[in-house]
Amino acid sequence: MIVVSTGNIAYSITKNFTEKFSDVDFRWYKNIEEAEESLYEAEAIITYGEDLTEDHIYKAENLRWIMVVSAGMDEMPFQAIAEKHILVTNARGIHAVPMGEYAIHMMLHTARQMQVVQEQEKEHKWDRSPVMTELHGKTLAVIGAGAIGAEVARLSNAFHMYTIGVNKSGRNVDPFCEISTIENLHDVLGKADFVVSVLPKMKATNNIFSRDAFKSMNSEAVFINMGRGNVVDEQALLRALDVQELKHAVLDVFNEEPLPPEHPFWSHKKITVTPHLSGISPQYQPRAMEIFHHNLQVYRSGKGEYINKVDPSKGY
Amino acid sequence: MIVVSTGNIAYSITKNFTEKFSDVDFRWYKNIEEAEESLYEAEAIITYGEDLTEDHIYKAENLRWIMVVSAGMDEMPFQAIAEKHILVTNARGIHAVPMGEYAIHMMLHTARQMQVVQEQEKEHKWDRSPVMTELHGKTLAVIGAGAIGAEVARLSNAFHMYTIGVNKSGRNVDPFCEISTIENLHDVLGKADFVVSVLPKMKATNNIFSRDAFKSMNSEAVFINMGRGNVVDEQALLRALDVQELKHAVLDVFNEEPLPPEHPFWSHKKITVTPHLSGISPQYQPRAMEIFHHNLQVYRSGKGEYINKVDPSKGY
Repeated sequence: MIVVSTGNIAYSITKNFTEKFSDVDFRWYKNIEEAEESLYEAEAIITYGEDLTEDHIYKAENLRWIMVVSAGMDEMPFQAIAEKHILVTNARGIHAVPMGEYAIHMMLHTARQMQVVQEQEKEHKWDRSPVMTELHGKTLAVIGAGAIGAEVARLSNAFHMYTIGVNKSGRNVDPFCEISTIENLHDVLGKADFVVSVLPKMKATNNIFSRDAFKSMNSEAVFINMGRGNVVDEQALLRALDVQELKHAVLDVFNEEPLPPEHPFWSHKKITVTPHLSGISPQYQPRAMEIFHHNLQVYRSGKGEYINKVDPSKGY
Repeated sequence: MIVVSTGNIAYSITKNFTEKFSDVDFRWYKNIEEAEESLYEAEAIITYGEDLTEDHIYKAENLRWIMVVSAGMDEMPFQAIAEKHILVTNARGIHAVPMGEYAIHMMLHTARQMQVVQEQEKEHKWDRSPVMTELHGKTLAVIGAGAIGAEVARLSNAFHMYTIGVNKSGRNVDPFCEISTIENLHDVLGKADFVVSVLPKMKATNNIFSRDAFKSMNSEAVFINMGRGNVVDEQALLRALDVQELKHAVLDVFNEEPLPPEHPFWSHKKITVTPHLSGISPQYQPRAMEIFHHNLQVYRSGKGEYINKVDPSKGY
């Protein structure tokens, strides 16, 4: 069995696989260009999911399994994959830890006025007047109540926040105090002190944070987007901040990434820009490759259940 | 009964007391200078604890109770108070919520390189290379495992950190994974990724973070002081940061406050200075005055137990 990785996996991880599965022919590459020489022999491909084209899929005649060591699969050529009945598994869920920590960090960063505090520090200015608030007792709305949203809620509950989750079905998700359906989005937004979006990129989520959505928000609320940039109507957000329909926005994801240097978000006083780093963690590859490890055993033995099997016809 | 407040309590709070206890003669002042006209008639004084002198205590002949709406009582004239057998109660414990949030915030702020991220934002620079770490799986040592330390540990446990508390007696404190005595301080410091000091100001805590203490720390560790400034040997800290015995220090409290503008801490790259704000919260006065409310009922009825009775001979 030939396994080709295009994902630049760390040597500390690859060497364990090479040792443990001595009858598997692992070919570890830094990127798809380097991998090209082996790609069409591969029975399994390990990828971050942004480098495979339809052409690759059609040409790789032995390909039976793609392990995507990521969760966002916007760029995957799913039509070709479905046609060829290729198994797809991914690494969804492993972002929960760093993204949970990111969400709490950004809530504390805004509630405790850290930007102002750091400006004062630069000026050697001892000033205790910036008004601090607490997370304690505040209401959090998580739009997109899946594995990541649930982790944000679990941590927020520890801070004694009231947590409302919004999902498509309205089905109950464990750590949330309350669950609502996407039809009630604007009502939920009106109750929240913090709104965290972890919605994926889909047609249905395009510009879901519209002019009306921002209008329904609390003027002291903070909006945090760490899902995908397509959910935000950018002009509507800028307008809403200017007329004080909400207090602040923290944006980690954008319609265009990297965010162009001339984009107005960068220097807007009420916007904090972070460069799509909410999911970054030194534990990322080890956690993703643990899933691959499990799935490789299932693939070879035919026993057990795959973790995170993806339906190529739905794209998730 | 005459109650004099020197603490500038918010009108939204004072009006409830004035209405509810119509037979108590409340006199609400902004500061001790304004209060002087009533001070010597007072049976009870509400104070932040930094304005009363021995002279006030001796002259206030009817004084039987001092409610300190604060926890730090370094400035209280305890000798005179003990001589006159005056009851003292304080507001310890109410700092736990904001200080717990501060500690988590500062751990995330350093672990997730927020200072660097914000510098990049100013330059409109999309750069995902700053190395982020997680709180997940890290070890936290809290030096001074009381009510505030316990709240820090409770939140840290939610982040799946391993929490070690250090106190004088080694007595068990609930949310900590492990408790150690102050004699083992240097051993504990060697195990920690984050060290949080909430030690009070006492002779025994002077310069407890000495050259040897910093030497025993992990070179990647972050030191957070939100107790009192006297615990840090400032020269030893500067030296330890320069020779990389620890990675970063977050300081909220100092030997001299306000921290003088020319102090080297302000512009040191490995030090984050915040102006004694870890305990600041809009809920501060409401929570402190709830304790006063309870204690006032005990005082007048002679029934029930005082919350936070202080032993003037010990000063805590």
